[in-house]
Amino acid sequence: MNRAERFLAACRGEKTDCTPVWYMRQAGRYMAEYRRIRSKHGLLEMFKTPDIAVEVTLQPIRAFAVDAAIIFADILLPLEGMGVRLEFVEGEGPVIHNPVHSTADVDELRLAHPEEHLGYVLESLRRVKSELGGERALIGFAGAPFTLASYLIEGGGSPDHLRTKEFMHEEPEAFERLMGKLTETISAYLLAQVDAGAQAVQIFDSWAGCLSPSDYREFVLPHTSRIFATLRAAGIPAIHFATGAAGLLKLLREAGGDVIGVDWRIELDAAWLEIGHDRGIQGNLDPALLMAPLPVLKRRAVEILDRAAGRPGHIFNLGHGVLPPTPTEAVRELTDLVHEHRA
Amino acid sequence: MNRAERFLAACRGEKTDCTPVWYMRQAGRYMAEYRRIRSKHGLLEMFKTPDIAVEVTLQPIRAFAVDAAIIFADILLPLEGMGVRLEFVEGEGPVIHNPVHSTADVDELRLAHPEEHLGYVLESLRRVKSELGGERALIGFAGAPFTLASYLIEGGGSPDHLRTKEFMHEEPEAFERLMGKLTETISAYLLAQVDAGAQAVQIFDSWAGCLSPSDYREFVLPHTSRIFATLRAAGIPAIHFATGAAGLLKLLREAGGDVIGVDWRIELDAAWLEIGHDRGIQGNLDPALLMAPLPVLKRRAVEILDRAAGRPGHIFNLGHGVLPPTPTEAVRELTDLVHEHRA
Repeated sequence: MNRAERFLAACRGEKTDCTPVWYMRQAGRYMAEYRRIRSKHGLLEMFKTPDIAVEVTLQPIRAFAVDAAIIFADILLPLEGMGVRLEFVEGEGPVIHNPVHSTADVDELRLAHPEEHLGYVLESLRRVKSELGGERALIGFAGAPFTLASYLIEGGGSPDHLRTKEFMHEEPEAFERLMGKLTETISAYLLAQVDAGAQAVQIFDSWAGCLSPSDYREFVLPHTSRIFATLRAAGIPAIHFATGAAGLLKLLREAGGDVIGVDWRIELDAAWLEIGHDRGIQGNLDPALLMAPLPVLKRRAVEILDRAAGRPGHIFNLGHGVLPPTPTEAVRELTDLVHEHRA
Repeated sequence: MNRAERFLAACRGEKTDCTPVWYMRQAGRYMAEYRRIRSKHGLLEMFKTPDIAVEVTLQPIRAFAVDAAIIFADILLPLEGMGVRLEFVEGEGPVIHNPVHSTADVDELRLAHPEEHLGYVLESLRRVKSELGGERALIGFAGAPFTLASYLIEGGGSPDHLRTKEFMHEEPEAFERLMGKLTETISAYLLAQVDAGAQAVQIFDSWAGCLSPSDYREFVLPHTSRIFATLRAAGIPAIHFATGAAGLLKLLREAGGDVIGVDWRIELDAAWLEIGHDRGIQGNLDPALLMAPLPVLKRRAVEILDRAAGRPGHIFNLGHGVLPPTPTEAVRELTDLVHEHRA
């Protein structure tokens, strides 16, 4: 069983020789190799230049024994093909220059076409797949409709998503059409990623945790569940990830995903019980622990592995992305610890 | 049964004629009467001038049929008496000019003395108590040690509390001493508030939800539980509130509180089951719903009341504070709806 097989078996809930591990944002600013490239190029340029995106995707693969690579891209990229003017502003994060504030704005959005608008991601996937030579799994990804809708309505990141909730409650039909367009775009994009070599996909509903379960059930679940139904019909292993969603786990399960990704704000065993043991679970170390003294990091990692109790279907990961001040030594030690741990 | 009795009975888990209701930040910027005063005075000045603090505390009492008043103050005020230089910066929130970054900084902190350093809050409580004439309950409050420690270490608010976690993991003994000093200061302050007329107290552990259950159990619970033990010994009804804490509810219960306050990110009935029906529950409407069309607001409020199923011990509240753009009409309608609802 090589690393790719280990990761994919865990996605299917099958027994593995040890717990597979990868990290959200494993390609990123905490690596000196990444910072060297980043200092010379803008983010959008990096995503759109396969030479760079492939190199950056492979950097953590060379440095660590992680079981999977995740393509270097951003959840907002499909929005460009929908007619959105997107910019990554230094030190501020993503900015959307034509946010969605009205029914008319929704109607102006087109559907993105994967080959036409996101061909650069597909090209990077093809090249990474070939470089990996079947030794590590390749993960594609997309943002979930709600999280993308929130970026579109807020015009960027937001601490409270108030405009999004206001639009959702005041213009439920327009919101529904917006979610529908995002769902179609994302579904086609994910299928294209699989055609290009992705062996599993992760859906990031990063902001779903800002919603009450009632709002999630009414306004979000019907759309997200269409994406997972499409993936299931195509036989593609899918991970469904949200943060701050300890109170939404049953609904995330209902929406779909072979594996549910959870953050660190709930014990892994309690979360798995909520989700159901017929699904896998991914997580769930607090990324801040990678900055803690090594003995503390290791103690908390072992606690998580112990809570998984060797049950098939656990993929070790952080509860959110690797943070920029993370020492690479901690990532290396953690990866080896996970692989060496025996339940 | 008047309103004060209704609220206090619910705190004790006793049957009431209808569900009691009050709102976090019910005295605040969404009220024109508040904005008129605020435009002429700084926040610290407002807290420290009993004439103003009493008036602002009573504004929502005059406008709405809420069952309890909460004293107009801030969780950071006790820090001044500990030697902290605190400022509320316009548009930025609180700033601490001498943050805690080292063991030496911890050792320099004194214990605050309620009468000496917080006499103005106690004076405001005495006057409000007399104004209320026993018709509405009077709630005192304090920040929990972890939330105050986070403000001290970060030097203000923080999206991720990384410095706090770093200090906690790297300097566990200094962190323990810091939590100990905060615990002593807060315990004495709460007892003094009760002497001054508070009939119940709420502990705000607003940031506890950023922690993994393991970190909460090890670094926070032993301190918070000392405060609740003190309150219990003194026979004071206590509400324990945190946000984003759907995965911590069992531990919040373990730390203490007659009533656990929950935000909107979990269904009320699921949360109550976690907490246990031998404790009360407070919550849990998304504050954003007060900006939604009235029929949507009312539908969601009724859902929450239905999930409480008439079980004694439910205090209706928002999942967090009233937001500044909230229309007062929505607050009035919601308050009346809660009182008129029959299970």
